[in-house]
Amino acid sequence: MHKKRSWLFFLGVLILVGVALEAYAGDPTGAETLKKDPGAPVDYVWILVCAFLVMFMQPGFALVEAGFCRAKNAINLMMKNLMDFVAGSLVFFAVGYALMMGKDWHTLIGISGWFLHGDAYDVHTYLIWIFQVVFAATAATIVSGAVAERIKFPVYLFYSAVVSAIIYPIYGHWVWGGGWLSKLPFGVGAVDFAGSGIVHAMGGFIGLVGAMALGPRIGKYDDKGKVKPIVGHNIPMAALGVFVLWFGWFGFNPGSTLSAHELRISVIAVNTNLAAAAGALAALIFMKLKVGNWDLGMTLNGALAGLVAVTAPCAWVEAWAAVVIGLIAGILVCLSVLSLDKLHIDDPVGAVSVHGINGIWGVISVGLFADGTYGNYTTKAPYVKGLFYGGGADQLLAQLISAGVCIAWAFLMGWITFRVAKAVFGGIRVSAEEEAEGLDYGEHGGNAYPDFVVSSYQQH
Amino acid sequence: MHKKRSWLFFLGVLILVGVALEAYAGDPTGAETLKKDPGAPVDYVWILVCAFLVMFMQPGFALVEAGFCRAKNAINLMMKNLMDFVAGSLVFFAVGYALMMGKDWHTLIGISGWFLHGDAYDVHTYLIWIFQVVFAATAATIVSGAVAERIKFPVYLFYSAVVSAIIYPIYGHWVWGGGWLSKLPFGVGAVDFAGSGIVHAMGGFIGLVGAMALGPRIGKYDDKGKVKPIVGHNIPMAALGVFVLWFGWFGFNPGSTLSAHELRISVIAVNTNLAAAAGALAALIFMKLKVGNWDLGMTLNGALAGLVAVTAPCAWVEAWAAVVIGLIAGILVCLSVLSLDKLHIDDPVGAVSVHGINGIWGVISVGLFADGTYGNYTTKAPYVKGLFYGGGADQLLAQLISAGVCIAWAFLMGWITFRVAKAVFGGIRVSAEEEAEGLDYGEHGGNAYPDFVVSSYQQH
Amino acid sequence: MHKKRSWLFFLGVLILVGVALEAYAGDPTGAETLKKDPGAPVDYVWILVCAFLVMFMQPGFALVEAGFCRAKNAINLMMKNLMDFVAGSLVFFAVGYALMMGKDWHTLIGISGWFLHGDAYDVHTYLIWIFQVVFAATAATIVSGAVAERIKFPVYLFYSAVVSAIIYPIYGHWVWGGGWLSKLPFGVGAVDFAGSGIVHAMGGFIGLVGAMALGPRIGKYDDKGKVKPIVGHNIPMAALGVFVLWFGWFGFNPGSTLSAHELRISVIAVNTNLAAAAGALAALIFMKLKVGNWDLGMTLNGALAGLVAVTAPCAWVEAWAAVVIGLIAGILVCLSVLSLDKLHIDDPVGAVSVHGINGIWGVISVGLFADGTYGNYTTKAPYVKGLFYGGGADQLLAQLISAGVCIAWAFLMGWITFRVAKAVFGGIRVSAEEEAEGLDYGEHGGNAYPDFVVSSYQQH
Repeated sequence: MHKKRSWLFFLGVLILVGVALEAYAGDPTGAETLKKDPGAPVDYVWILVCAFLVMFMQPGFALVEAGFCRAKNAINLMMKNLMDFVAGSLVFFAVGYALMMGKDWHTLIGISGWFLHGDAYDVHTYLIWIFQVVFAATAATIVSGAVAERIKFPVYLFYSAVVSAIIYPIYGHWVWGGGWLSKLPFGVGAVDFAGSGIVHAMGGFIGLVGAMALGPRIGKYDDKGKVKPIVGHNIPMAALGVFVLWFGWFGFNPGSTLSAHELRISVIAVNTNLAAAAGALAALIFMKLKVGNWDLGMTLNGALAGLVAVTAPCAWVEAWAAVVIGLIAGILVCLSVLSLDKLHIDDPVGAVSVHGINGIWGVISVGLFADGTYGNYTTKAPYVKGLFYGGGADQLLAQLISAGVCIAWAFLMGWITFRVAKAVFGGIRVSAEEEAEGLDYGEHGGNAYPDFVVSSYQQH
Repeated sequence: MHKKRSWLFFLGVLILVGVALEAYAGDPTGAETLKKDPGAPVDYVWILVCAFLVMFMQPGFALVEAGFCRAKNAINLMMKNLMDFVAGSLVFFAVGYALMMGKDWHTLIGISGWFLHGDAYDVHTYLIWIFQVVFAATAATIVSGAVAERIKFPVYLFYSAVVSAIIYPIYGHWVWGGGWLSKLPFGVGAVDFAGSGIVHAMGGFIGLVGAMALGPRIGKYDDKGKVKPIVGHNIPMAALGVFVLWFGWFGFNPGSTLSAHELRISVIAVNTNLAAAAGALAALIFMKLKVGNWDLGMTLNGALAGLVAVTAPCAWVEAWAAVVIGLIAGILVCLSVLSLDKLHIDDPVGAVSVHGINGIWGVISVGLFADGTYGNYTTKAPYVKGLFYGGGADQLLAQLISAGVCIAWAFLMGWITFRVAKAVFGGIRVSAEEEAEGLDYGEHGGNAYPDFVVSSYQQH
Repeated sequence: MHKKRSWLFFLGVLILVGVALEAYAGDPTGAETLKKDPGAPVDYVWILVCAFLVMFMQPGFALVEAGFCRAKNAINLMMKNLMDFVAGSLVFFAVGYALMMGKDWHTLIGISGWFLHGDAYDVHTYLIWIFQVVFAATAATIVSGAVAERIKFPVYLFYSAVVSAIIYPIYGHWVWGGGWLSKLPFGVGAVDFAGSGIVHAMGGFIGLVGAMALGPRIGKYDDKGKVKPIVGHNIPMAALGVFVLWFGWFGFNPGSTLSAHELRISVIAVNTNLAAAAGALAALIFMKLKVGNWDLGMTLNGALAGLVAVTAPCAWVEAWAAVVIGLIAGILVCLSVLSLDKLHIDDPVGAVSVHGINGIWGVISVGLFADGTYGNYTTKAPYVKGLFYGGGADQLLAQLISAGVCIAWAFLMGWITFRVAKAVFGGIRVSAEEEAEGLDYGEHGGNAYPDFVVSSYQQH
């Protein structure tokens, strides 16, 4: 408990510094902003509606995760997905936003906007905050799937707050907040339109660290190392979750123009949809050829893989390229899921494969398929051009560096976070008894489905 | 049956009077409206999209209620939540809208716009109607949770129509339609930005009347008066419902500017999100300290409590104040749920605590935290200023009066409605046999989950 | 397999022809489009958001279908609803869009825009594509319900691709793409505002062909021809689906103005909502009088019937007419469901009755209730006026012709498609063993609910 207090103390100091640096001159009513920019209302509507759609991805993730896991942990899984958004909102309000989108300090971190107070009490700052917070929470919630069914609830609460407060915002600052990766002297600097790397790969690789730190669920691999599938308790629930995510992604990607005056939003929406479809189709066919069944679970993950992969390039490619990117993503996710199982890394919902691997693929694909017709909204650079369109390897190099840094940062910070959690909470994993009985009973004193008779064969 | 006819007769008379009063000069195509206000399209898009989001709260309420109740009543609960929107839409079309938003008559009721006919066949009137109808239906559906698992279906149909046709619109007129509460000579008159009082407290306290009139469900309190928890049959369903409501609230609150040219919408969205998060966190911690578990049910209700509370003040406070309002709401909802159980008032989903108590808290909080930077859209008053910002106790007084009137009106009209229902339908509660067997069988001749084996221990 | 290749070859030829016809002069960034039309952003936001809402109808259909069918087929049903959108997106990208909305060729088909390439790489073309693709996928997914629980998965994949690639786009071209039905010399030509006929009746009647081609599910009718109801495994899931569809319909109908500058969007939203409510109420009362229960299943279908019926006339009628159209729809759907059962046509979710019959009713109702206040956006005709408003029988005649052509085209093309499928896939229906065991096991090697004990009585 005293350790928590010292962290709060550190937080307090940070805040005071931040407050001291600020003047007070925001536009809290929006009257001045409207006078300066009479076209602002449509941009505000666009960004807000898209933010709401991205927020709605939270239940999408919850449904996917709970559906793909067992009934005995369903309360715990919903709780985790609720609380990462709750904790994420509050810490991103306090510090995360300032670190990410505040005034740049030596291209490393942002240093203004703490608690949305002072200068930050401004309609435009609040607007950007609501759009950014749902991205931060997405990064945090991705981790959830990889550590499902065995992590202690307070540990989850702790690290998901750290992800939204520190890990995600700092890497985010490097690419979106004017940090050093955006200023790389290759191509137009590293770019990531809506966050294949910043949000998805970051979440996916922190999830990988978590899955490795926790070890596999009891019973996932038998004595001889063979995989014994643990199947989800409610597949239609998981399918619903994927539909919800697909829907929410129409806020995630097109909304990232941060302006409705960029009519390119229609192209982004089309690319998003086509990559998802292509990813699903590729995974469906791959699994049919490989396993012989029309596998719904992998087809759903294929759709998500396509969505993750197209998130970085969506604004800079033509429709056919989105299809190609999605097709490759659908195959990558299958290969990755099969490989992780061979390595005995137990990722219950495929979060590492969907978000980690395909997040990286998305970042790289920009360096290949960007067709040079559209600029980079953030840096105001006129064109992003990839290898296949005569842009040379420059942009690709910037993308590769950014991808490498993303993975390294996720591993480093993830490792530190789980080490700290281990020390503070006396271990990060629930007891074997609790795991067998279900976390719903152990952590939450409940039963998700008390009116139904539950089958025993999947309980252990 | 003849009683129903006499009510229809009364309705007919009302309509004829209304029609007689009207001239015919609306703008049904919108061409003239557009000419007068070329900026209208963005406002129409904003209001419509927000209205759609609020409509989507209907399944949110349905999921919460069904998830927190038993499998044997699941059809009944979905039916109720469907039909209050159905009946609400039709009666609000016929009379509710006119009473609430029609031309003011002595600050008591509105008297034009019946059946959206005549002058009311106008793009702007239709626009306001679609936004208002989803609020009316929300008020009606809130009641549903408090009377769940024991009310006769036709009684439900009757009183939910009365709520949307009469009870809600008249109080709504007093605050939003230019009625006497909005003209109180304290502060800027009573205000309620998006309806903490008008929608939520109204629904919550009618629900309290209903829960008291019906009495507790069989088995909820044992012979010695001890609470025997009746747990919900599908907790992930309830959690999904809360996520859906949170999402829909982004239409409820920011949409209540009724204009996208009020860029303050971004501040409102942020406040809405932060209050929800703070409410959830407060309830989580409160229950952990009080009961020892990480309680999902109360955490979900904490999030809703934060949302309800911030609904009145969302446009007039800074982000940190939204957090404080939400934290208090999260604690209030826990205290209220525990207290109602001590009083043996059986509110199956906590509707009274979430919407009633926190609706009132929201109305009052305006008088404390309104920071004086933003005006009141409805009355065009320049500032709403609460006690903590040097506004004195004037605004607080107006808010307290409005809160008191809300509670009194809900009790009076709720009591009359349930008395009438008792007389008309020969009692308002199903038989003990039907209650034990489940309302799905008794009222609807069905079974929500025929393919699953149902546990017996919660049946009685 | 070689047959598939020959189809691909044909496709390839078609593409080459298409590409050869095109010049390259689109506006892929939107900069020029914005310059020419500074009011475009609000239209883009409106159309995109509405498209997203319509896309969200996909999970709505999935939930309704899965909820109303049995647990043993739940994976299959979610898979079908996922894959029709996946396949639909890809084929509509390749050929469907070009056939429907491309440059008109002798009022029969469109012939430009293949693969969204060349000239079609343009923000406006992409915008219309994303709006149209979700309509195409809706037509395809409607069929799914009628053929549920017995169709081979690859057959489903095949014909749903054909619907989105060919059948739907060609009839769509005739009404919306400048084809011959829109040029009929009666009234303003055949009109269908948002697709009661084009989308719903088309899907519904192809579904009827499918249901007839497949024959009823084993056990649906006993030896004496009596109906033995097969009830859905999760009624709340179906109810959630209807709420989701109702929500999505607010994109479907108002979005079909394809412009936010048509302020009539508010009237369309109101009419949509009221018809749904009226349909639900009519079905509720009809079933109560006919069967004696408050039937949730039929009430849900009544709401959908109202929505389907109002889809064609929504822009051209006053609110009270929407109520009347909805009331009739709610009764029609009940009568149709009862009649189909008498004919031993097994339509598990009532798709034919909801979408087929009421789609036709919607198309016809335009010729009756259109009040002459509003024009036809597509043809720029100033008024659509029906019989009851002194428009004579001209418009009604155009509507009747269009309805007849819709049914004929659906039957003809549906029949051909299922014949081809039968030949290619060696039959269109799964074996009796697989049907008894459930398609989840047979086609997908899975079990939707492995943690729950399943009741046996509905398995066969």
